[in-house]
Amino acid sequence: MKKNISVLTDITAANTLLANGLRETFSEHHLLVLNVISASGAGKTTLLEETIEALGDEMSLAVIEGDPYTTIDSDRIEAAGVEAVQINTMGGCHLEANMIQKAIQQLDLTAFDLVIIENVGNLVCPSGWDLGEECKVVIAPITDGDDKPLKYPMAFQSAQAMVISKIDLEPYTRSQASVMAANALQINPELEIMPVSAYTGAGMEAWLAWIRRQVAKHKLKDK
Amino acid sequence: MKKNISVLTDITAANTLLANGLRETFSEHHLLVLNVISASGAGKTTLLEETIEALGDEMSLAVIEGDPYTTIDSDRIEAAGVEAVQINTMGGCHLEANMIQKAIQQLDLTAFDLVIIENVGNLVCPSGWDLGEECKVVIAPITDGDDKPLKYPMAFQSAQAMVISKIDLEPYTRSQASVMAANALQINPELEIMPVSAYTGAGMEAWLAWIRRQVAKHKLKDK
Repeated sequence: MKKNISVLTDITAANTLLANGLRETFSEHHLLVLNVISASGAGKTTLLEETIEALGDEMSLAVIEGDPYTTIDSDRIEAAGVEAVQINTMGGCHLEANMIQKAIQQLDLTAFDLVIIENVGNLVCPSGWDLGEECKVVIAPITDGDDKPLKYPMAFQSAQAMVISKIDLEPYTRSQASVMAANALQINPELEIMPVSAYTGAGMEAWLAWIRRQVAKHKLKDK
Repeated sequence: MKKNISVLTDITAANTLLANGLRETFSEHHLLVLNVISASGAGKTTLLEETIEALGDEMSLAVIEGDPYTTIDSDRIEAAGVEAVQINTMGGCHLEANMIQKAIQQLDLTAFDLVIIENVGNLVCPSGWDLGEECKVVIAPITDGDDKPLKYPMAFQSAQAMVISKIDLEPYTRSQASVMAANALQINPELEIMPVSAYTGAGMEAWLAWIRRQVAKHKLKDK
């Protein structure tokens, strides 16, 4: 076990170095990059489809898709009308900065205001890997139970924003969005929390407004 | 990356050796061990609470709980009335055989018919780690989307049984249990698939009958 841990530390240190370089590159291109993290099946791709539909006319955006094997998600994103780069980790449980470095070679960075990275569906591993993003966003469905931030604190600690997804299903569960939010704030008092249903559209405006604010803040910072 | 992969191979090979030893020990004690795998928030603990309630009188069972940090789940299992051993991985994304070896030192193996290991909530990493179990069981909530077996095939490939959980919520989603089952069978044609709602009790009898069959089969095999 000791050997395992020390190797892992070396790898994440190298990853952070590379991620810092990516962050500089993104900043030079006035590009906001979000790293979206959640368990598998939290509704990341559906949220992104609706986000693209809503913001596609007012800003230029691209998506980098991380998946173990398939192109199901990047096919959906391309069908929604924006450029998508697929990274298949071949079973790997998270994205790393070197994968992002390769992926952005397929994008003209000067052409975009916003790049959203959809990480591999996993609430544990991706939190520890910096991808050069400006913000991490954690997505937690209300159907997963309102205790999730307490049980899997890593993603909630490292994120700046949290979307409580699938809130249209809240009445049919034993969980409450308000309790989930309180639990998340206990882990990270700075979290901006937005309950959203990508299906009904409830809460979407707050989420879109948050993205608009980040893009604007980022452009200002670059000047 | 190459270095990372070779170290990982060495570690999983050592893990498999240890797991094979554990399997022999379990077999000597006529003990059925199940390794339950799912994403975080799939309803593993709720399913186990109901399973304990239903089977507690007819067999003797214990639970080994894997969680990143908290004892929330083992507290719930103990409240349900059976012995629970907590393993906290301190952020680690899966259980390993050496952790099970330590955990069973706290159990009198001669006293049980069935030990259920509840793995860390993660649909990716736990699949690759043998814990000495007789069967892996994968839990996939219908609310996570019926495409999950195609997108995260590892857990479905390595399992002998699959519970489609939260089927009481099926009418409120865009997913169908029949489609999820067909997708899972595409990945693993041998899977025994059981749609269950631990809240309403729908499908619980099939799940309990499956466990009873495994326990009986295992006892027979030992003779």
